[in-house]
Amino acid sequence: MGGGSVITLLTDFGTTDSYVAEVKGVLLTRAPGAVLVDLTHDVAPGDVRAAQVILGRTWRRFPEGTVHLCVVDPGVGTTRQAIALTAGGHRFVGPDNGLFTEMLTGCDSAVLAIPAEASPTFHGRDVFAPAAAALAAGTPLDVLGAPAASFVRASLPVPRREGNAIVGEVLLLDRFGNLITNLEGDARTAGGRVYVAGTDVGLVRRTFGDVRSGDVVAYRGSGDTVEIAVRDGSAADRLAATRGTEVRVLSA
Amino acid sequence: MGGGSVITLLTDFGTTDSYVAEVKGVLLTRAPGAVLVDLTHDVAPGDVRAAQVILGRTWRRFPEGTVHLCVVDPGVGTTRQAIALTAGGHRFVGPDNGLFTEMLTGCDSAVLAIPAEASPTFHGRDVFAPAAAALAAGTPLDVLGAPAASFVRASLPVPRREGNAIVGEVLLLDRFGNLITNLEGDARTAGGRVYVAGTDVGLVRRTFGDVRSGDVVAYRGSGDTVEIAVRDGSAADRLAATRGTEVRVLSA
Amino acid sequence: MGGGSVITLLTDFGTTDSYVAEVKGVLLTRAPGAVLVDLTHDVAPGDVRAAQVILGRTWRRFPEGTVHLCVVDPGVGTTRQAIALTAGGHRFVGPDNGLFTEMLTGCDSAVLAIPAEASPTFHGRDVFAPAAAALAAGTPLDVLGAPAASFVRASLPVPRREGNAIVGEVLLLDRFGNLITNLEGDARTAGGRVYVAGTDVGLVRRTFGDVRSGDVVAYRGSGDTVEIAVRDGSAADRLAATRGTEVRVLSA
Repeated sequence: MGGGSVITLLTDFGTTDSYVAEVKGVLLTRAPGAVLVDLTHDVAPGDVRAAQVILGRTWRRFPEGTVHLCVVDPGVGTTRQAIALTAGGHRFVGPDNGLFTEMLTGCDSAVLAIPAEASPTFHGRDVFAPAAAALAAGTPLDVLGAPAASFVRASLPVPRREGNAIVGEVLLLDRFGNLITNLEGDARTAGGRVYVAGTDVGLVRRTFGDVRSGDVVAYRGSGDTVEIAVRDGSAADRLAATRGTEVRVLSA
Repeated sequence: MGGGSVITLLTDFGTTDSYVAEVKGVLLTRAPGAVLVDLTHDVAPGDVRAAQVILGRTWRRFPEGTVHLCVVDPGVGTTRQAIALTAGGHRFVGPDNGLFTEMLTGCDSAVLAIPAEASPTFHGRDVFAPAAAALAAGTPLDVLGAPAASFVRASLPVPRREGNAIVGEVLLLDRFGNLITNLEGDARTAGGRVYVAGTDVGLVRRTFGDVRSGDVVAYRGSGDTVEIAVRDGSAADRLAATRGTEVRVLSA
Repeated sequence: MGGGSVITLLTDFGTTDSYVAEVKGVLLTRAPGAVLVDLTHDVAPGDVRAAQVILGRTWRRFPEGTVHLCVVDPGVGTTRQAIALTAGGHRFVGPDNGLFTEMLTGCDSAVLAIPAEASPTFHGRDVFAPAAAALAAGTPLDVLGAPAASFVRASLPVPRREGNAIVGEVLLLDRFGNLITNLEGDARTAGGRVYVAGTDVGLVRRTFGDVRSGDVVAYRGSGDTVEIAVRDGSAADRLAATRGTEVRVLSA
């Protein structure tokens, strides 16, 4: 079949305004034949952490060589660096605000120049899209700029051990009201008893199909971490949980 | 021009989370050059019936050979079958929960194996997307699995005759608040008088342009069934109608 | 890389129903290999003015030859003309309701025939999509219909001078609550003092990065007009502004 380079887009622009389309126009003008895929544009405005979690769950699913254009950029127009990276066989373009923390170790990088004519409020269109298109069209990273001397890092919270418990937290709430945690769904959590902000929600099971409609259930989620759901309902509502809510697993 | 195989996506995943993008990454990795088109991802969680109606209105508009990947799947991780079908020159992949009822007569089918490593909560990514990509890339249906011995069927409600009336119901409410019914816009309904839950809304007309702004109007809709709208307003609100509300047409 | 003709879509159909997908099915059936890009489908129902502003900000970003299919069409099924245009090296297809006002001067045009079998409520699918696909597939404009003798025009409001002030208005509110005005971000407004419905919001600055979080700021926006934002907040909420709210700049 073939097919052009894939460019994914991850932003907080929403889909109501012209912003995403302006970016796509630049991409298709500069990289004709590129295949554009939306990760999501519905990240809450400026929520770098949510973007980081979504990108982390997604990028490896795409073909090697994919360019990921990520613009959740509350610091646009300030002195934050604009960067492009190569890591794990993929390319990443966006602001240096911690969004790419997981890719920074051992990556190749380029600091992007900000052209004088770039809008100071829309680097997505005027700085990042041209760089992403250049990479998709075959321009080598080192032509885009000099390597970055340092990066902003914003690591995701890491669970801790407390006796025979592992204590983590809710990283993200999804549209279904499922709680996605940072607790790995591995041998240490398998079959353990789960507490959300102190409330016992039972053992880690295989799937929400293992409980009755309306029941709370913990299980190893599709991102290989512990999730908590209400079958046919919202765990976020039922448990009044938000991002950062403590989730504790008592070993089986 | 040419162009790769078309794969459409119809889900209840929403567009806020990473789920749709994870599926698209799998599709583009396994079927490079495939053209991905969203039908919608905003089906209410688990609303198989809405998905069925939307798919029924849409699939024939796409080129022959299109693969329709449909994942509204409240039974994911239970014992429901995962299936792929060929019908009417199109291909369909998704859960065996009635979503494909209209395509089942005379179709060719394959029951998909569930790999041990598939996430029990995300067959969309781990079972259905690989099958859809395989079909798009040219793998024959019978390589994907043995034919299904039987299917779950969930037929759409069929209107009934009552004297000189035809009695149907609201199948779907659209974003404009229009009521889409299961009453065919044919000779039997043309010019008839329409009652929504007993309220007379006038004769079946040609289009909402035939009444004044703010007026209720029944007409033959774009899906060739009777619809009820309020011009520049919401019939759902005005008539307090929901899915299943009775709609009756008295022959002209 | 290459790549087929680009067709953009701008509608008020929303993304919950089947309507956008029905249009895309027609496009891909009649123009295989066309690259489809959503501008937005979330224009408020019938809001031609919003569509006009969004199209005006976006179309030049796309490659020359792009076909822009624009269907915000409250007059569907009435006697309004269906048109196709060539202007500025781009092609436009949609209703003759003022949406294309900025492209009308010096354009080439075709009045599209309405086939008898076209749904009177869905010209997007049955009239405009076939015309857009034909243009994308290489059909010359004059094959689609005779040139239009006249057009509906709906010019955007133009700012006026009052002494040493320029007086314009809010054209559009974006998802961030930013106020996008019709005041050009040029020498006349640079550094001027801005009043929104009489409230002093300070000088025109370079970007919202120039004020503290929570502060109101006016700046030259990415569409080269004056915008008013609240950094990390909503200017629409703070200033109780809506479309049409007066914005006045007192020259520096």
